[in-house]
Amino acid sequence: MNIAGYEIQALETRVAREVRAEIEDFHNEYCNTLDLGDLDDWPGFFTDDCLYLITARENVEAGRPLGLVWAEGKNMLRDRAYAIKNTMMYAPRYLQHFTSNVKVLNMGGGQIRARSNYLLLQTLVEGPTTIHQAGRYYDTFVKQGSRLLLKERRCVYDTTLIANDLALPV
Amino acid sequence: MNIAGYEIQALETRVAREVRAEIEDFHNEYCNTLDLGDLDDWPGFFTDDCLYLITARENVEAGRPLGLVWAEGKNMLRDRAYAIKNTMMYAPRYLQHFTSNVKVLNMGGGQIRARSNYLLLQTLVEGPTTIHQAGRYYDTFVKQGSRLLLKERRCVYDTTLIANDLALPV
Amino acid sequence: MNIAGYEIQALETRVAREVRAEIEDFHNEYCNTLDLGDLDDWPGFFTDDCLYLITARENVEAGRPLGLVWAEGKNMLRDRAYAIKNTMMYAPRYLQHFTSNVKVLNMGGGQIRARSNYLLLQTLVEGPTTIHQAGRYYDTFVKQGSRLLLKERRCVYDTTLIANDLALPV
Repeated sequence: MNIAGYEIQALETRVAREVRAEIEDFHNEYCNTLDLGDLDDWPGFFTDDCLYLITARENVEAGRPLGLVWAEGKNMLRDRAYAIKNTMMYAPRYLQHFTSNVKVLNMGGGQIRARSNYLLLQTLVEGPTTIHQAGRYYDTFVKQGSRLLLKERRCVYDTTLIANDLALPV
Repeated sequence: MNIAGYEIQALETRVAREVRAEIEDFHNEYCNTLDLGDLDDWPGFFTDDCLYLITARENVEAGRPLGLVWAEGKNMLRDRAYAIKNTMMYAPRYLQHFTSNVKVLNMGGGQIRARSNYLLLQTLVEGPTTIHQAGRYYDTFVKQGSRLLLKERRCVYDTTLIANDLALPV
Repeated sequence: MNIAGYEIQALETRVAREVRAEIEDFHNEYCNTLDLGDLDDWPGFFTDDCLYLITARENVEAGRPLGLVWAEGKNMLRDRAYAIKNTMMYAPRYLQHFTSNVKVLNMGGGQIRARSNYLLLQTLVEGPTTIHQAGRYYDTFVKQGSRLLLKERRCVYDTTLIANDLALPV
C-alpha cells in the first residue's frame, strides 16, 4: 500500500522516538475527545487547510481516490461535527479508540508523516462491545508552537463491512 | 464524563511523558498478573487504604454512584481474590488485557491522576476470543519508593452487556 | 506460565525503558510487514539460527512441546513464506496486528528477553473485522549493529478456536 508522500526515510533513532512519543500523546487527546463525544473540539486538532479522508484499503490499493468521507478545510469538519450532533439520526452508542504501532515515516519541510494502527470499538445500548472499524492512520502533522496539528489524516480501514450510512469521525 | 479529581492540568511535557512511561510499565505488570491468573498478587498493586471500583459509563455520566464492584481497602481486595479463587464457580477462561492511550491528567500532593483505555479479551475453552469488556481506567497513583501503587482505580466500562454475575478484577 | 529463560530479572529502570522503546519500534516494523502482506521481508527480522513457534497456551501450561508451527532457522521461514504466497489456497484477507504491554524480562549474554501482548485482527472480503488470534510474544532478541533481530519468537495464543488449517505468521 503506497501512498505518495508516506515513504519510509531513514531517521535518527532518538529523534524518531521523541516524535513517536509526541504523536502518541496527540492520539491520546484526539481519541479521547471523540470517545467522550466532544465533537465541537474535534476540528481543533486540524490546520485550517487540512484534508481529512476515510477510505477503504481496497480503494487505496487499487489507486482509486474514492472515499467514505472527504473533507477539505477545517470548516468542512465543523459542518460535519455540527451535522452529526444536530441533524443526523442514529442510535446512541459509545465509542472507544485504541491506537498502536506508531511509526514515524519521514520528516522535512516542517512536516511529520506517520502511520499508526487504530481500532475503533462500538457499544450500542444494551449490546455487546464490537469492532466497528480497524485500520491505519496516515498522518501529516505540522507544529504550531509546541503543539501538533493534522494537516492531513487519511484513515484507511480494513473493515469492508461497516455501516456506510453513518460516517462518524475516526 | 467528569469525575471529581480527574481534571486535566497543564503539565510540563517531559515530566508528563516520563510519568506516562512509568504508568505503562505499571499496567504491563498489573495486567500480566491478572492475565496469568495470579490473583494472590493482585492486591499488592494497591495501597492499604485503596478504593477499587468497576462502574458502567452510563452510571458515571448520570452521576450515580452505583457500581458492579466497590471495594475499600486492600483487605477487601484480598477477600475478593480469595473468593474468586476458592469459592466461586465459573467456567475456566483465559483473559488478556490490552492498554492504550495513557494520559497523565494531573499531579500534586504526592498523587498522580491518569486515564487509560483498557480492552479485556476473554477466551472460553473451545470458544473464540471475544471482547469481554472495554473501558477506561481512572487511576490515582502514589509512589512507594520508586514503585507506583494504586490508591484508587475506577474502571469505567462502555460494555453494558457484560456477565454481571461474574465480576473478575479488571 | 513459566517458559525456561523468560524469568523476570530486576533491571535498571532507565535501561529497561530504553529497550522497551526499541522493541516497540521493532514490533511496529514487523507487524506492518505482515499486515501489508510483504511475506518475503518477514524472514529478515530473524537471525539465521532462529527458532519460531506458534503454540497454544494450554500446551505451554501443560509443558507439552506441541505447536501449530515449529520452524528452525531462517531458511524454514523462507520456505514457509514461499509456500504461503505461492502454493497455499485460502480466501484473501486483511490482517492487522496490535501490540501492547511490552515488558523486558531479562538481559545478558548479548540477549534481550521480552514479553508482549498481540492481537491479530482479520477481515475477510465482504466480512466484518474479527479477532483472529490473541496471545503473547515471548521473544529473544540479539543486536546486529543497531538493529534488533529475533533469535527466538514463541507466539503463545489464548485463542483455542483458530483456523488450524491456515497458519499464517504472527
